[in-house]
Amino acid sequence: MATIAMKFGGTSVADLDRIRHVAGLVKREVERGNKVAVVVSAMAGETNKLVAWTNEAARPDGAAGSHGIPDQREYDVVVASGEQVTSGLLAITLNAMGVKARSWLGWQVPIETSAVHGAARIEGVPASAMKAAVEGGEVAVVAGFQGVAPGTRISTLGRGGSDTSAVAVAAGIGADRCDIYTDVDGVYTTDPRIVPKARRLDKISFEEMLEMASLGAKVLQTRSVEIAMLNRVPTRVLSTFTPDVGGTLLCDEEDIVEKKPVTGIAYSRDEAKITLQKVPDRPGVAAAIFGPLADAGVNVDMIVQNVSEDGDKTDLTFTVPRSELSKALAALESRADAIGAGAVTHDAGVAKVSIIGIGMRTHAGVAQTMFSTLSEKGINIQVISTSEIKVSVLIAEEYVELAVRALHTAYGLDAA
Amino acid sequence: MATIAMKFGGTSVADLDRIRHVAGLVKREVERGNKVAVVVSAMAGETNKLVAWTNEAARPDGAAGSHGIPDQREYDVVVASGEQVTSGLLAITLNAMGVKARSWLGWQVPIETSAVHGAARIEGVPASAMKAAVEGGEVAVVAGFQGVAPGTRISTLGRGGSDTSAVAVAAGIGADRCDIYTDVDGVYTTDPRIVPKARRLDKISFEEMLEMASLGAKVLQTRSVEIAMLNRVPTRVLSTFTPDVGGTLLCDEEDIVEKKPVTGIAYSRDEAKITLQKVPDRPGVAAAIFGPLADAGVNVDMIVQNVSEDGDKTDLTFTVPRSELSKALAALESRADAIGAGAVTHDAGVAKVSIIGIGMRTHAGVAQTMFSTLSEKGINIQVISTSEIKVSVLIAEEYVELAVRALHTAYGLDAA
Repeated sequence: MATIAMKFGGTSVADLDRIRHVAGLVKREVERGNKVAVVVSAMAGETNKLVAWTNEAARPDGAAGSHGIPDQREYDVVVASGEQVTSGLLAITLNAMGVKARSWLGWQVPIETSAVHGAARIEGVPASAMKAAVEGGEVAVVAGFQGVAPGTRISTLGRGGSDTSAVAVAAGIGADRCDIYTDVDGVYTTDPRIVPKARRLDKISFEEMLEMASLGAKVLQTRSVEIAMLNRVPTRVLSTFTPDVGGTLLCDEEDIVEKKPVTGIAYSRDEAKITLQKVPDRPGVAAAIFGPLADAGVNVDMIVQNVSEDGDKTDLTFTVPRSELSKALAALESRADAIGAGAVTHDAGVAKVSIIGIGMRTHAGVAQTMFSTLSEKGINIQVISTSEIKVSVLIAEEYVELAVRALHTAYGLDAA
Repeated sequence: MATIAMKFGGTSVADLDRIRHVAGLVKREVERGNKVAVVVSAMAGETNKLVAWTNEAARPDGAAGSHGIPDQREYDVVVASGEQVTSGLLAITLNAMGVKARSWLGWQVPIETSAVHGAARIEGVPASAMKAAVEGGEVAVVAGFQGVAPGTRISTLGRGGSDTSAVAVAAGIGADRCDIYTDVDGVYTTDPRIVPKARRLDKISFEEMLEMASLGAKVLQTRSVEIAMLNRVPTRVLSTFTPDVGGTLLCDEEDIVEKKPVTGIAYSRDEAKITLQKVPDRPGVAAAIFGPLADAGVNVDMIVQNVSEDGDKTDLTFTVPRSELSKALAALESRADAIGAGAVTHDAGVAKVSIIGIGMRTHAGVAQTMFSTLSEKGINIQVISTSEIKVSVLIAEEYVELAVRALHTAYGLDAA
């Protein structure tokens, strides 16, 4: 007998038949003698509909087709209704199937969050009442994606937030594990749409998964992996539609026996490169450049600084999310005098490819294999960035598939 | 400067354009210097959609088309989301128009109710935080129809409950008046669809409105009139689409100068008549009959007992809502032995017509005019029931329109 949290995303609860299927999976766990909390997303499509309504309501002039930015606290009130409906419907279905269940909304659990409406951060889940109900044998059906901000206002966690809700609920009730049911059957060595020989991983360490998620693998939201890691919640990713096949377990590094040099390969196309030429090579210039970008809310990722010919000038290159490129350029232009660069060039046709593996800590020459493999394929590396367990390179976007496939083979990840 | 509560029903907030129109009406009140709380229903159609989902989720065997009875607490969670969405959207629209506003859900106000989920009764509105916000100049947009039951579970008030929410909120914040915006421009002397000469009433007393509502006039929910009367909240009914035309004020009896004998004529087709023949005329027989009906949740309305020929037997006739007829007959049949009646007959082809007026207290012969008017038209009166300010008669349903028109003329209510 174990206490488990289960999480089902929007496609898993897209209509009443699928909700019934989900109820069946929950019932199965209860019949195995487990205590269960289930976290659900909104029915697929509902959140988009609600978001569109909020944008339309916010149009300042009332002209059809024009959009505005809605009051974020009220945006949360409207959008959170989607998960409320699903949690109620699943609780009704479970009760009709003879499984005692009740819904818990974010404010009822409570899932306490920061006041950053629309992208709130979970700060605590003091779920003692819910925990007692679960321990008493009642299934808790928790509305995902939502919480309660200071002042008892409804908050939402931002897209993908239901994963985070699930792991936080698992931690809050002291669950033995958290099962994330989704439309894929686990975490793969890389994106199977690009590499048909990609393999499902039976296990992956929290640290690796964190890098995979933040580097573009979209199976889990980054924050959910952070919370799982911090609270040491064993977390499984598995398929709603084939729950008995496979799955991937996120676990502590120590629980992984065979540490390959590289566990997975991630990529991201949401990249743009900015180069400032002939920047004065003096103290304070980096602050003059990155200060305005931070103020404008631009997330700078990779940074590289080259020495230029004449010694007192330097070229500075960095990447930003493609969607933030124009905002970044505007921020730099407004401070051009203070920066004193020669010219600013940019390129939105770039992509980031990363190799990830805890084995890098103990294996030598891992990065060298990456560089030589790309070189053999004639792929130019524009920027390199490394951490303890990953190496990322920026390349021209057109080479992404080629690069990922070549690296997948080079690191021995191809399925037999 | 006044503090006012405004209420808008489902057709008034049916889409984002109408919500914008409503926001314009709210803004106008704010610009007049008034402090405003607005109560909104769900967008027209939304509640029906949500209710259908709960029924489908509750089907025990999962067969398409079959329905079940959903867990009522979870039903409330699902259905209350409709008003949550509207309140958020209206708050967004108001803020976009430059009017400071925030939404308040039932549990946030809080609107405290009984635990009778699906048909909860408002027990208190300790709205001090909301009152302070309204007094500070912020528009409160309250989700109607919902409240919070003991144990912080979401509750709903049953159909039409948003009227009740509005009056309760008005009382809770000590509003100077409550304006109920609807799709008609006020309360009429009778149903204008039947009597083209029906007139809009400028004023009606709470007591009369209570009778009108409970006798079939569908402008306001009965419970909302009760709360308005108990808390002495001046309440206006007016049109969302022509807010500057007319309207009807519900007020204290003393505020009505000219007290006509009859103020309005109501009718109800939701009636069925049951007659028990040759019931033993002895103590306890009424209890033997009406006890089982009460246990079965049947609302008995008019009751009349005739003396039968042979002295020790009596005929008993009463009415029930037409929708409860089969339930009533089943309850009587199960106790037929205890009752000992000769035969049970029933008739679903009946209707109730009522005359209402506080003037009856001081005018004589008011009922006699009703009886003679119906007699002249050849309409047979089957049952009569009276109270201090109304007379109701049961007649064959086919005569309803004729009876209402004749009475409207007889009591001098026709428009010039």
